[in-house]
Amino acid sequence: MDYLDLMKSLHVQNDRKIVLLVMDGLGGLPVEPGGKTELETANTPNLDALAKVGVCGLSSPVGPGITPGSGPAHLALFGYDPIKYEIGRGVLEVLGIGFPLQPDDVAVRGNFCTVDANGVLTDRRAGRIASDKSAELCRLLQGIRIPGVETFVLPVREHRFAIVFRGPGLDAHLSETDPQVTGKPPLPLVATAPEAEQTAKLVNQWIEEARALLAGHHPANMFLLRGFAKDPSLPKLSDVCGLRAAALSTYPMYRGVAKLVGMDVLDAGNSLDDELAAMEANWQKYDFFYVHVKATDSRGEDGDFQAKVRVIESVDGAMPRLMALRPDVLIVTGDHSTPAAMKSHSWHPVPTMIVAPFCRTDEVEEFSERACARGGLGHFQAVELMPMAMANALKLEKFGA
Amino acid sequence: MDYLDLMKSLHVQNDRKIVLLVMDGLGGLPVEPGGKTELETANTPNLDALAKVGVCGLSSPVGPGITPGSGPAHLALFGYDPIKYEIGRGVLEVLGIGFPLQPDDVAVRGNFCTVDANGVLTDRRAGRIASDKSAELCRLLQGIRIPGVETFVLPVREHRFAIVFRGPGLDAHLSETDPQVTGKPPLPLVATAPEAEQTAKLVNQWIEEARALLAGHHPANMFLLRGFAKDPSLPKLSDVCGLRAAALSTYPMYRGVAKLVGMDVLDAGNSLDDELAAMEANWQKYDFFYVHVKATDSRGEDGDFQAKVRVIESVDGAMPRLMALRPDVLIVTGDHSTPAAMKSHSWHPVPTMIVAPFCRTDEVEEFSERACARGGLGHFQAVELMPMAMANALKLEKFGA
Repeated sequence: MDYLDLMKSLHVQNDRKIVLLVMDGLGGLPVEPGGKTELETANTPNLDALAKVGVCGLSSPVGPGITPGSGPAHLALFGYDPIKYEIGRGVLEVLGIGFPLQPDDVAVRGNFCTVDANGVLTDRRAGRIASDKSAELCRLLQGIRIPGVETFVLPVREHRFAIVFRGPGLDAHLSETDPQVTGKPPLPLVATAPEAEQTAKLVNQWIEEARALLAGHHPANMFLLRGFAKDPSLPKLSDVCGLRAAALSTYPMYRGVAKLVGMDVLDAGNSLDDELAAMEANWQKYDFFYVHVKATDSRGEDGDFQAKVRVIESVDGAMPRLMALRPDVLIVTGDHSTPAAMKSHSWHPVPTMIVAPFCRTDEVEEFSERACARGGLGHFQAVELMPMAMANALKLEKFGA
Repeated sequence: MDYLDLMKSLHVQNDRKIVLLVMDGLGGLPVEPGGKTELETANTPNLDALAKVGVCGLSSPVGPGITPGSGPAHLALFGYDPIKYEIGRGVLEVLGIGFPLQPDDVAVRGNFCTVDANGVLTDRRAGRIASDKSAELCRLLQGIRIPGVETFVLPVREHRFAIVFRGPGLDAHLSETDPQVTGKPPLPLVATAPEAEQTAKLVNQWIEEARALLAGHHPANMFLLRGFAKDPSLPKLSDVCGLRAAALSTYPMYRGVAKLVGMDVLDAGNSLDDELAAMEANWQKYDFFYVHVKATDSRGEDGDFQAKVRVIESVDGAMPRLMALRPDVLIVTGDHSTPAAMKSHSWHPVPTMIVAPFCRTDEVEEFSERACARGGLGHFQAVELMPMAMANALKLEKFGA
């Protein structure tokens, strides 16, 4: 079942407001057997009080055992089946830095890297060169001219950049050049479908010119390309759900995904406080707010259990300010788990709660993995969250007679 | 996965009897935060005792957040994917009053309504005229003759009636004439697919003649048509499950759905007692009994919490009589939730229990929303209930070697 189709045919508009608060990588693990997770360790009186009046459960971003990237994990939260709808990494990257991608553009993510005299990869991230240096190299590469193709070489952060190729008939079915390990040369770029042969030729021309330009710029004397992609033309939340939706995220990629589903991206500053201020300032203009907190994931990736606990506690501290807006439906969840014990995204389902007048409160009295496992929402697919949000906002009509 | 296909290939016949007791709109909500639902409030010693020896869970009729109509909700209970199998309202209506619908008939639901001198709608239900009056008007309209088309104008209840059009090449792709609000004239009837152009012409002829005939019959001086449909030719339970199935319902529409899936509709009288008497009288003839209780839903729709509680208690009181028949598998569930607090169907999952010798009893000790949320059946789709019923009746063989 595609919930987008159902929601599209059933949605109605009203004044009720939905807030989707996403603590990136929220779900966790104990560091020792029998111990507590990050969320269970954190002192979260506000979230616990909300769990008490709300309904809780565990959501699976893609499916049991599947560890999702941020793109599919967020698509699922927004109601899009992450198996059916795919966003290429290149697209996420350029939308995240605010580039106005056009429907036929081909975007790709680049990493500056280091190669030795034989062209063999010695550092896949060029020593994580400074963002300034990276921007300077992008300006250098911007000078390359390929007949019939306009190129945009866009700095992202540290060693990361992106390229957009614009021109008639370009196709994104192209292989990646990142061998994923050092000790090998970058892979040759080839077309993975016949319709991309011409594009492969043009991009290979660009690569050769760029290789020559970078030769003297050790450690950033080469680059790796990953995730060639076009705008996937996703259905927009305004059409699917009739929502005026706003996104608040301090981190480019999440703003990019939000744009893809048709959200307005608001200036979210640099912190959850800034995000809340922006939400307060725009409260009347929208009926759906996606609020993203990145640091839970970052501290999980760092493997810093206590720091992740402190991030969760700081979000807990911000809940009274958020609830002062009186959202009709509040959802608190994560896009996936990032246990500090694993220093990476994981497959574990994510603690989730819905707080709304008709949410049918369960017996859960605290917001934690263990408590959510026996909550009234049960174990569910993240893609089901949006229909539940819409239902709790009384924005879905009856299906059938 | 289509469970019908699986059950069709795996079912075997035996003497075990299944009773599916459906309390319409069973699921509820507390009227105040932290309070109890209707089912939690009701004193239900018999249902609680059954829950203690059975296995419980929460079933989702169509999907999370989706509020179902009675048609899709019942199809799901009978094992039919309610997204894949659709029944038009017109078909439900005429089958419910026992009309012998033929495969090529086009059926539609009608409401007598009131229009002013300009043809503008002032009451969509013509003041809910008495059933007698409605039947008299149907007899009047039965006199209309359209060349090449046989018509049956069938009174239903109060302002509601149905029309069946019978003739070569009729097609049901027709728009509705109900604008859903007063202050507008009825909508024109048009074909929604090219193959229905001729049918639209004929039905419009009928509408014009009917309009003239009704002109002097204020308040029922016009009518609205909704849900043109043909028999959806559903697979029959006898083929799918090898079941001799009987339906007991005091309310037309549910008998209609039961007929569509191939159940024999027994005379169910006017009460649950009558239904039980009919079941007792026919116990040897069938191996599946669908028993429907309408009043839970009706009192929920009324917003009368205490009355819904009393209906549940009366059903509880009837359980010893039902259990005296010693069904091998008893299922107690609802087709959807109808919380008195919402006065309407809702999306909330439905308390469900299976009582059978091999049901694998869980820790649930009472039949309630909260208790079922942590039951052994977990949260499941209603369409999965029929395979579980068949399994518990030992009527399904092993899948694969």
